[in-house]
Amino acid sequence: MTTDFAATRALFHLPEGIVYLDGNSLGPLPVAARTRVADAVTAEWGEMLITGWNRAGWMDLPRRVGDRIGRLIGADPGTVVMGDTLSIKVYQALASALELVPQRRVILSDTGNFPSDLYMADGLVRTLGQGYALKTVAPEEVEAAIDGSVAVLMLTEVDYRTGRKHDMARLTAKAHAAGALTVWDLAHSAGALPVDLAGCGADFAVGCSYKYLNSGPGGPAFIYVAPRHADTARPALSGWLGHEAPFAFDLDYRPGAGIERMRVGTPPILQLAALDAAMDAWDIADIHDVRARSIDLSEAFIARVEAACPMLSLASPRDPAARGSQVSFRHPEGYAIMQALIAEGVIGDFRAPDILRFGFTPLYIGMAEVEAAADTLARIMASEAWNRADYKRRARVT
Amino acid sequence: MTTDFAATRALFHLPEGIVYLDGNSLGPLPVAARTRVADAVTAEWGEMLITGWNRAGWMDLPRRVGDRIGRLIGADPGTVVMGDTLSIKVYQALASALELVPQRRVILSDTGNFPSDLYMADGLVRTLGQGYALKTVAPEEVEAAIDGSVAVLMLTEVDYRTGRKHDMARLTAKAHAAGALTVWDLAHSAGALPVDLAGCGADFAVGCSYKYLNSGPGGPAFIYVAPRHADTARPALSGWLGHEAPFAFDLDYRPGAGIERMRVGTPPILQLAALDAAMDAWDIADIHDVRARSIDLSEAFIARVEAACPMLSLASPRDPAARGSQVSFRHPEGYAIMQALIAEGVIGDFRAPDILRFGFTPLYIGMAEVEAAADTLARIMASEAWNRADYKRRARVT
Repeated sequence: MTTDFAATRALFHLPEGIVYLDGNSLGPLPVAARTRVADAVTAEWGEMLITGWNRAGWMDLPRRVGDRIGRLIGADPGTVVMGDTLSIKVYQALASALELVPQRRVILSDTGNFPSDLYMADGLVRTLGQGYALKTVAPEEVEAAIDGSVAVLMLTEVDYRTGRKHDMARLTAKAHAAGALTVWDLAHSAGALPVDLAGCGADFAVGCSYKYLNSGPGGPAFIYVAPRHADTARPALSGWLGHEAPFAFDLDYRPGAGIERMRVGTPPILQLAALDAAMDAWDIADIHDVRARSIDLSEAFIARVEAACPMLSLASPRDPAARGSQVSFRHPEGYAIMQALIAEGVIGDFRAPDILRFGFTPLYIGMAEVEAAADTLARIMASEAWNRADYKRRARVT
Repeated sequence: MTTDFAATRALFHLPEGIVYLDGNSLGPLPVAARTRVADAVTAEWGEMLITGWNRAGWMDLPRRVGDRIGRLIGADPGTVVMGDTLSIKVYQALASALELVPQRRVILSDTGNFPSDLYMADGLVRTLGQGYALKTVAPEEVEAAIDGSVAVLMLTEVDYRTGRKHDMARLTAKAHAAGALTVWDLAHSAGALPVDLAGCGADFAVGCSYKYLNSGPGGPAFIYVAPRHADTARPALSGWLGHEAPFAFDLDYRPGAGIERMRVGTPPILQLAALDAAMDAWDIADIHDVRARSIDLSEAFIARVEAACPMLSLASPRDPAARGSQVSFRHPEGYAIMQALIAEGVIGDFRAPDILRFGFTPLYIGMAEVEAAADTLARIMASEAWNRADYKRRARVT
């Protein structure tokens, strides 16, 4: 497939007059989501009421949409299911993975992981007690730290601040060689670049849908379990929809077959409707094309910014193969600079303490926008337009 | 307030030609939810993109809506927050409650609890290890089973099958006298009858929003923590939005102040928008009026059904004060009877093995519908219209 990016661009609504380089935080509205969500509200909930669970296919939606995401991340049909938030899915994957390596007690992660993953691991470790521990090392030290003490290697493939990308295949192989399992967080990977979970032999993976998958604010997360673990992994969050027979209402929990057991409670149908609509873009887009185009855009942005803004230092790896689909620069006044950029209609985001982060999302962003963003940034830096008290006063930033 | 039930009825869309007695499973569409969800999609997500988290107030929505629910359940402002599913919230409340009673190991519950609550407790007990155990007794034996071994009494106030209602005040006092804490599941209470969490001294409470609160399929759950525990309860599901400073992205978890710490991940904004619209009904409805009217409707239904259908036996308590807002009857062919009823436009639901369940929801159901439903049921029973192979063939029932 050679992706027609003009066609994918037409699938999204973007407000006039802005350059949106924050789709790695919240993807924009897919035009089809308007109708799809309205139908879920009016035609399904409104007219079918309780019967929507069967007649509108609500009950199976987490699996159907999971399969659509599976195609982007190298997961076979029936190995991905939607639900909950990413933090919950991290807990769930991690708890199951730990139980599969009962003789070990160490979760290994890195300081570049998204903090919520570390917080959830910390909460799980506290609940488990009995010597369980979370060990974090610097991202570049992960490989050397994989040893025979590690039960589970828990990593986010692409660093949310710098865009640094781990080598999933190599680290997974290393973990397996050491007798450990892996939990991969694909928050900044799914929809951004090709992932090959099955090919890498990944054990568990989780991710969110509101970034590069454009499901809207608070869209549900996904979880993948390798088929070899799917019928043995025991869910710690053992909710009724993961039961073998939810509607038998047995008093005892018996995990459902395969990925079904990773379901917990009632799925969020309105959010899933939006996600399902958003996934239509992938019917005409090839993730390899998206990756290639993202690299073109990112390289152009880096070149243009570095040429014009020597005071900004590149925080992302220079090698595009070692980056995800974002580019970050550092500056001590990063917060104020981002406020000035937003005031000029260029939306990126700031990550403490000093990171300016720009996401490149070829489904709806092209070279013209990238050049405009770089030029606006250059103008702001040259004129010190960021140097205003109101830009420096920090509000809560998302 | 004397509630105008014609006015509340006008706030809901109900399809023509049906009598909907299943609002205790999934409430109908509030007319205002159409616009409110469409606005969240188009005007907020579509136009504000990432800035919606602040500009549209998305980040605070779980607290703002939580406060609206708090008014129905005797919870002070700032003690309730929305998020996740009810199963997740059960786990979260239970884990925190257990940690507050560190010298004890027993969760006491009953066999009338919703199975998912028991499953989640079972999963937590397995994760905790170290002698933690879930003990279940029959609902009528709960009071006698509260002793000095019990760490947490975990009950659903209203039984999902029979509608039997526990005495929250008495059981909470008994638990406290025995040195135990309480986790109350209000799934069939919130919006159905007055609950006085603060007055009862309840410690933790959880509930869902898609039943009597009409938030739509998969709407988020709520959690309440008594103010005396709110700053000491430690979240086991320690997600970033429960952190003291989520956007500082610290590597270490520090729980936020009060109920904020019970937040986990990114809240589902489209579902919350629907819920927020649904809560408008409570601006003109008084929960005490709703309860009184629900009893009138339920009593009328029981009298009419019992007069015409001697083959159905009442499964709910006869004393309305001992019931929630539903009425259940038993019959060995309950499944087929419910299918026949649904075919006649009367929507209730079936709960295995033999329960016909009817929810009474005065916000949008009146005496005419109740009489029509009873008469239809009587006609079906008299004619044995349920006695058809296609009605007896069980599909997956929700």
